[in-house]
Amino acid sequence: MTAEFSIEAVLAALRSVLPSGKSFLPLHEPSFSGNEWAYVKECLDTGWVSSVGKFVDRFEEELAAYTGVKRAIAVVNGTAALHVCLLLAGVRSGDEVLMPALTFIATANAVSYCGAIPHFVDSEERTLGLDPHKLGSYLADIAELREDGCYNRLTGRRIKAVVPMHTFGHPVDLDPLCEVCGRFGIELIEDAAESLGSFYKGRHTGQWGKLSALSFNGNKSITTGGGGAILTNDEELGRLAKHITTTAKVPHRWEFNHDMVGYNYRLPNINAALGCAQLEQLPGFLAAKHELAERYRQAFSDMPGIRIVSEPADSQSNYWLNALLLDEECAGQRDALLKATNDIGIMTRPAWTLMHKLLMFAGCSKMDLSVAESLERRLINLPSSSGLMNNDADAHG
Amino acid sequence: MTAEFSIEAVLAALRSVLPSGKSFLPLHEPSFSGNEWAYVKECLDTGWVSSVGKFVDRFEEELAAYTGVKRAIAVVNGTAALHVCLLLAGVRSGDEVLMPALTFIATANAVSYCGAIPHFVDSEERTLGLDPHKLGSYLADIAELREDGCYNRLTGRRIKAVVPMHTFGHPVDLDPLCEVCGRFGIELIEDAAESLGSFYKGRHTGQWGKLSALSFNGNKSITTGGGGAILTNDEELGRLAKHITTTAKVPHRWEFNHDMVGYNYRLPNINAALGCAQLEQLPGFLAAKHELAERYRQAFSDMPGIRIVSEPADSQSNYWLNALLLDEECAGQRDALLKATNDIGIMTRPAWTLMHKLLMFAGCSKMDLSVAESLERRLINLPSSSGLMNNDADAHG
Repeated sequence: MTAEFSIEAVLAALRSVLPSGKSFLPLHEPSFSGNEWAYVKECLDTGWVSSVGKFVDRFEEELAAYTGVKRAIAVVNGTAALHVCLLLAGVRSGDEVLMPALTFIATANAVSYCGAIPHFVDSEERTLGLDPHKLGSYLADIAELREDGCYNRLTGRRIKAVVPMHTFGHPVDLDPLCEVCGRFGIELIEDAAESLGSFYKGRHTGQWGKLSALSFNGNKSITTGGGGAILTNDEELGRLAKHITTTAKVPHRWEFNHDMVGYNYRLPNINAALGCAQLEQLPGFLAAKHELAERYRQAFSDMPGIRIVSEPADSQSNYWLNALLLDEECAGQRDALLKATNDIGIMTRPAWTLMHKLLMFAGCSKMDLSVAESLERRLINLPSSSGLMNNDADAHG
Repeated sequence: MTAEFSIEAVLAALRSVLPSGKSFLPLHEPSFSGNEWAYVKECLDTGWVSSVGKFVDRFEEELAAYTGVKRAIAVVNGTAALHVCLLLAGVRSGDEVLMPALTFIATANAVSYCGAIPHFVDSEERTLGLDPHKLGSYLADIAELREDGCYNRLTGRRIKAVVPMHTFGHPVDLDPLCEVCGRFGIELIEDAAESLGSFYKGRHTGQWGKLSALSFNGNKSITTGGGGAILTNDEELGRLAKHITTTAKVPHRWEFNHDMVGYNYRLPNINAALGCAQLEQLPGFLAAKHELAERYRQAFSDMPGIRIVSEPADSQSNYWLNALLLDEECAGQRDALLKATNDIGIMTRPAWTLMHKLLMFAGCSKMDLSVAESLERRLINLPSSSGLMNNDADAHG
């Protein structure tokens, strides 16, 4: 028993949770123990692997049903989904888009693709996501409401949208955020790339945004190889999202007409086949991930200087990635802990570098980001695969 | 024997080539008779389906070897490949990019993604592709050479690049086009989406451009479900292409730093696995497609009012899609012929609607497009799958 933080104690706690006898434990690896083979083989046997096919339709229907939205549109990845969400929400060249500084690069890149400019917002420690109360106060200072929307008085640019990201699967505090959006006339788009299976006040994340984005990258809770989806409750936006992601081709028996600049963002049928098989297993994956999170929580419950991140009150998190948070006074140990764990084959990583510290976004507007900066100094992600407790052999050889 | 064009004669000729007993003959369907299942199964068994994996590396190496370029970078589709080719060739917002009016929408869309403006060029009937001689004369009229490049005197915009497209696999006349590019200081980017397996003067298409784009969409000669590739002989551009298509992440054991606005355009490993299996079969596919083209040629060799398109002299075409060309005086029969063939399950289609006729590109600059307009009136694509002669049952049920 020690009352002081030590890396050895952290390693011991990790070892008590993680399976022994594996030379490498990745941060997140997929599990293909369902109908993946059967569905992919059906694609190959029938020749339907590409841009149309029954698995795309089925995956879209099942995603919409699971997340509780009217329309889901399968696309090639989460970045493409975000790009189209922004376009269809009316984000235009020269607009500013609010987003957390603590996010994956895709959120900021998608804004750049629209010719728009990220504007960085602080996070709250409770959710690891965008802080709606701090945002509301900030906007009261810098925003000016004009006839065509909310403007940043400091830059003169329109603030068209806000894109909260549900960090590691933990839902942002959506109710107060919606209130802020309503007060300032700002469109809400949820970056739900990490939060399939996460619920806020009993409803699935992605239901609050005008449009929302999911990701099925190989490291996500379910995977299609690469893939994503756009969610919306607006039928007309759903129709437009399908149209613009499939080259905006006007249906005709043989003519090739397109009525706007569109994108080739459709998800191939073979990837959707994987998605259908994975979605069938999602409840099992989520149960396993909750169990793992609970074991981590117990292992670190009494340890000084460090704690495990738990789902916010009122929310049910998918626990996509578990995270440790060092106390501020132990933050100096972060890199030593990253090294010690990775050296013994337990893959860990810090938070993403905050967006405003990257060269291409260094000149963007930002509020005080002290909480995000503190989280960046203190956060470490842990191995979180749903199959982590079940495997005895190395899955990746 | 009739000396007049008739739809019945065309149908009889098609029936003499095409297999009987199939209720529907698509324009182009894939064939999975090689190692597709073994390689895809390996992805599922090892868990490597996503953004990294050995099939991506192998597919890139084998593509580079086959096409004779130094670097091939696998991406999510041909449109993404074109987008990155344009960006890396230095196309910037406000530039003009020359391209044939007779092309698939992806060529023009990719230019739009850069904030640049298409500028439409006429085709030559011999290759169905961009006419380099007509382009040279046109540029002599409208172009002005300044220190930083070629400018369009009529619009004041810089003309940064030209993107010929090898229509249905038939190579554009590249030597005179390169001469025009050199004379006017315009970058050459080949849209080789349709021309994997097509050679100009003994060298594979895609070797002439500073960068070139391939497509492996489901209707192409080989398919990865959805996919594409960037080809280049410039090692530094190849390195940059890989970097910018993989979110521009700077390699590090755990840190997430990105040094430019990048894209999530990487090809998933599971799709690359399909590509490796398909590429092994390409020689067989090409032989079958040549055989089919020859049968079409013979069936239409003596028919009045119509002819089959053959590969240009000096070139070896992959015959991705076979095409019929009506004589100008029979062009009025095109739609009746499209209807008659599609009505009996022989899928045919006309050329793409010319780009300058689409709403969003109607205001773009263009030269005289009389040959492209004539081709559009007269052209009909025919079923061209490599497996067309081998199958007895419906592949798509």
